[in-house]
Amino acid sequence: MAKQQQGPQEKSQDAGKETITPRAKDYAQWYLDVVKQAELAEHSGVRGCMVIRPHGYAIWERMQRELDDRFKATGHVNAYFPLFIPLSYLAKEEQHAAGFAKECAVVTHHRLKTIDGVVQVDPESKLEEPLIVRPTSETVIWAQYKNWIQSYRDLPILINQWANVCRWEMRTRLFLRTTEFLWQEGHTAHATEAEAIEETHRMLGVYADFAENVMAVPVVQGAKSPGERFPGALESLCIEAMMQDGKALQAGTSHYLGQNFAKSSDVKFLNKDGKLEFPYATSWGVSTRLIGALIMTHSDDAGLVLPPKLAPIQIAIVPIYKSDDEKAKVLQEAEAVFNELKGQGLSVKLDAREGMHPGAKYFEWEMKGVPVRIEIGPKDIEKGSLCLVRRYVAEQEGESEQDLRKRKKAFVPRGEALSGMKALLDEMQRQLYERAKAARVRRTRTIDQLADFERFFKDEGGGFAWVHWAGSAEDEDAMAKKYETSVRCIPLASQIPEAARGEGKCIYTGKPSTQRVVMAKSY
Amino acid sequence: MAKQQQGPQEKSQDAGKETITPRAKDYAQWYLDVVKQAELAEHSGVRGCMVIRPHGYAIWERMQRELDDRFKATGHVNAYFPLFIPLSYLAKEEQHAAGFAKECAVVTHHRLKTIDGVVQVDPESKLEEPLIVRPTSETVIWAQYKNWIQSYRDLPILINQWANVCRWEMRTRLFLRTTEFLWQEGHTAHATEAEAIEETHRMLGVYADFAENVMAVPVVQGAKSPGERFPGALESLCIEAMMQDGKALQAGTSHYLGQNFAKSSDVKFLNKDGKLEFPYATSWGVSTRLIGALIMTHSDDAGLVLPPKLAPIQIAIVPIYKSDDEKAKVLQEAEAVFNELKGQGLSVKLDAREGMHPGAKYFEWEMKGVPVRIEIGPKDIEKGSLCLVRRYVAEQEGESEQDLRKRKKAFVPRGEALSGMKALLDEMQRQLYERAKAARVRRTRTIDQLADFERFFKDEGGGFAWVHWAGSAEDEDAMAKKYETSVRCIPLASQIPEAARGEGKCIYTGKPSTQRVVMAKSY
Repeated sequence: MAKQQQGPQEKSQDAGKETITPRAKDYAQWYLDVVKQAELAEHSGVRGCMVIRPHGYAIWERMQRELDDRFKATGHVNAYFPLFIPLSYLAKEEQHAAGFAKECAVVTHHRLKTIDGVVQVDPESKLEEPLIVRPTSETVIWAQYKNWIQSYRDLPILINQWANVCRWEMRTRLFLRTTEFLWQEGHTAHATEAEAIEETHRMLGVYADFAENVMAVPVVQGAKSPGERFPGALESLCIEAMMQDGKALQAGTSHYLGQNFAKSSDVKFLNKDGKLEFPYATSWGVSTRLIGALIMTHSDDAGLVLPPKLAPIQIAIVPIYKSDDEKAKVLQEAEAVFNELKGQGLSVKLDAREGMHPGAKYFEWEMKGVPVRIEIGPKDIEKGSLCLVRRYVAEQEGESEQDLRKRKKAFVPRGEALSGMKALLDEMQRQLYERAKAARVRRTRTIDQLADFERFFKDEGGGFAWVHWAGSAEDEDAMAKKYETSVRCIPLASQIPEAARGEGKCIYTGKPSTQRVVMAKSY
Repeated sequence: MAKQQQGPQEKSQDAGKETITPRAKDYAQWYLDVVKQAELAEHSGVRGCMVIRPHGYAIWERMQRELDDRFKATGHVNAYFPLFIPLSYLAKEEQHAAGFAKECAVVTHHRLKTIDGVVQVDPESKLEEPLIVRPTSETVIWAQYKNWIQSYRDLPILINQWANVCRWEMRTRLFLRTTEFLWQEGHTAHATEAEAIEETHRMLGVYADFAENVMAVPVVQGAKSPGERFPGALESLCIEAMMQDGKALQAGTSHYLGQNFAKSSDVKFLNKDGKLEFPYATSWGVSTRLIGALIMTHSDDAGLVLPPKLAPIQIAIVPIYKSDDEKAKVLQEAEAVFNELKGQGLSVKLDAREGMHPGAKYFEWEMKGVPVRIEIGPKDIEKGSLCLVRRYVAEQEGESEQDLRKRKKAFVPRGEALSGMKALLDEMQRQLYERAKAARVRRTRTIDQLADFERFFKDEGGGFAWVHWAGSAEDEDAMAKKYETSVRCIPLASQIPEAARGEGKCIYTGKPSTQRVVMAKSY
């Protein structure tokens, strides 16, 4: 514990001493080890709240930039709404209030006072109406939309907010489940149902594109079953990713809210026919949970693995020298390489820290998931080559760990190494996606018999089971008790693989079913 | 009220009908009118909390980008710490706790419950320890730094956080004073006092550079008098800007905290001599208040005026046509101009909204502070010219409003207009700064006699008074009661104009004084 909290220089001294629990030994501990040792986040002294450390936050910033660009390209603008939601606002939409009631941080007073030498809450500062720290912002935003919407000409409203939210949690897990987390929440208002439903699907598509092409995480797009819907939504769409342990992780949601929030906030507009109507709403969000998904999709027993598009540092340059004479030459070359790569718009770090063994630097950058390391020593300069070490290569079947390590390292003529760097990073990005997709294929089954289902989840490690389903919420609960599985999503038609198409009979009830769903254990 | 809450198309119908209260008539109302009609922000139904509307938020995003780049260029990284601060943390540093006690939002419960059909706070969910919604984050961040700092090799820590904070306010004013606001807060830890003090000054310099070169707002850099220091700081530096009504607005602060927070959080490090020592701290911040400063420095009776470097839209293109034939030609040219300017990396809006009179569009873009408008009609295409209308030009003495308006508009040969656009925007940026600086000069006096001081603030409208000061906090209070003025800052040596240098006698007490301070009324 104490070791992991040391600064980078300090830690270097212990390089190699501290290892990550292998996935095969204890997957949950492996995840926590990666989060800690890659210095992504840690628990704070504040119950259920995490601290996102600089390396973790830098990944979030990259995610934000990529997502924000996509939101703006689809016509959305950002705004900011209050952190606090009056209790009466939350209570307006019944289902919504019920859904969040058990996880609300409530502000009841607005002053402290020193009484008998002790700083405490001033009982005289009690608020007339308690304020809820937003768990989500539908009610407070629609209260404002009431002022902005009178006519169909005011629609659509396409607004997104980047914010912190709070859902009181008893059992927390860094990035995956914490009392406070960071997210974005889109809240749109439309003149017609068709337009709102189209928006719900458009934003699901944006999330899927981001997950697959930026995070290199393949996802299944689908709808939640009724029991799993967002409180107050008519339909909740989601993207589901498979983690390395075969469990599903919900990586983003896009909700069609119908007229529920317009009605509870009494927002009406004059439509083209001159009639008063309630507008149609959507909301959609992704959170810092995505960092958890990123870690559990790509990382390995040596630490974090980052797709180049999200790596805060894409290339780390480590100079190697013994004498002062060598040092001068090597640093000059290292700086030249640094400048050339930076000039290409790549994110490069020249690690010229003194008094630290190169091996300790390798260890640190591997742990932190930097895609490419360049080692530069006197011999490389002589030969006119650069030593490139990739953080990962596509595995080959039956390969020994030593062979794999060899293939990660290559001595490349200097010019070629520099001019080919972007292509190399693109290739690594693609390989990560392919690797994650292959892993998902290996753990995906089309299953028709409950006995096969049981074997898959109890003996074969589980994964995504494409099964016919026509059960009730109670049936789903019964399945959950037996197998710890649930309906992760009812996939969109475009998402269903050839082998899983068509009608059939519910795996649990035997009732007729029109399409298969994805069942899995989940985070 | 209702009018201002309508959408853009709706409002067009009322173009020209709605005017802003002139500054000369009612300055405070003018400010609120600009904030509302430029659609920057509005009050929410949540006590003391504002909604930052998309146009206001887009300005904040530009500010964030510029500031964040500067923070990173000076070696800082971003991170994220908890929203909630346990009461015991805040209580650790006595002065700090006392300073914020009266404006704390306090979370005391974590659940709601429906009792007798009414959703209310569940009394059984009372927290063992109340949580304060952060008014600032020194205590919660230093509790974490305790884990990160053991040796001098772990220092410096140079971290910034972008976040929302909450300081309970009874009387609020959009952007200037609200219960919740957005800001950034830097929190650094250093091995030596000298290094920490250097950091405090470095960040003040970053703020001053940003204010002057990006916001086009001239500022005076200085130190706060002891009574105005941040609670827990040994020294508070600040930048002070002059608004158009002559009042000062504190636009950013940088605090040297000494070892206070290290001591209260019990953070020690092993220094180079192998001895345990408390590290030295700084903290520094700017907030959405800057948007208030921006408005009150540059805007006029026609609405918002934005410096090009912060304008979310730098150029608005308005096509003008009557027939369908004209429309096709004009839109083609408007798109060509749009693409050429966008290709230059400029932020351009092609306003092709249908069914809206061009005059209404002019009105809207002027109100929203867009620096340059390009009007394109059939005649302009014939002549091969573009009609450029600047949002502002440098005023000439004694000029009539009509002449001023004429000078804002110019017909420029197409090629020249496009190739010269960047230079024009740079020139406008420079002019805004010069104008603000000239306004400050006009309202700045070096004053030695109390009678002159009184005349300046009571009869001549006031402004910045450079006076010698050696009074106590009580003397400052007495001056405040009489003139509503306070010591805005004790300027750094570099900031003192020629005429104000040297020693003298305190304007109030007659005691000897080593340098002049800036006294003014303030926001």
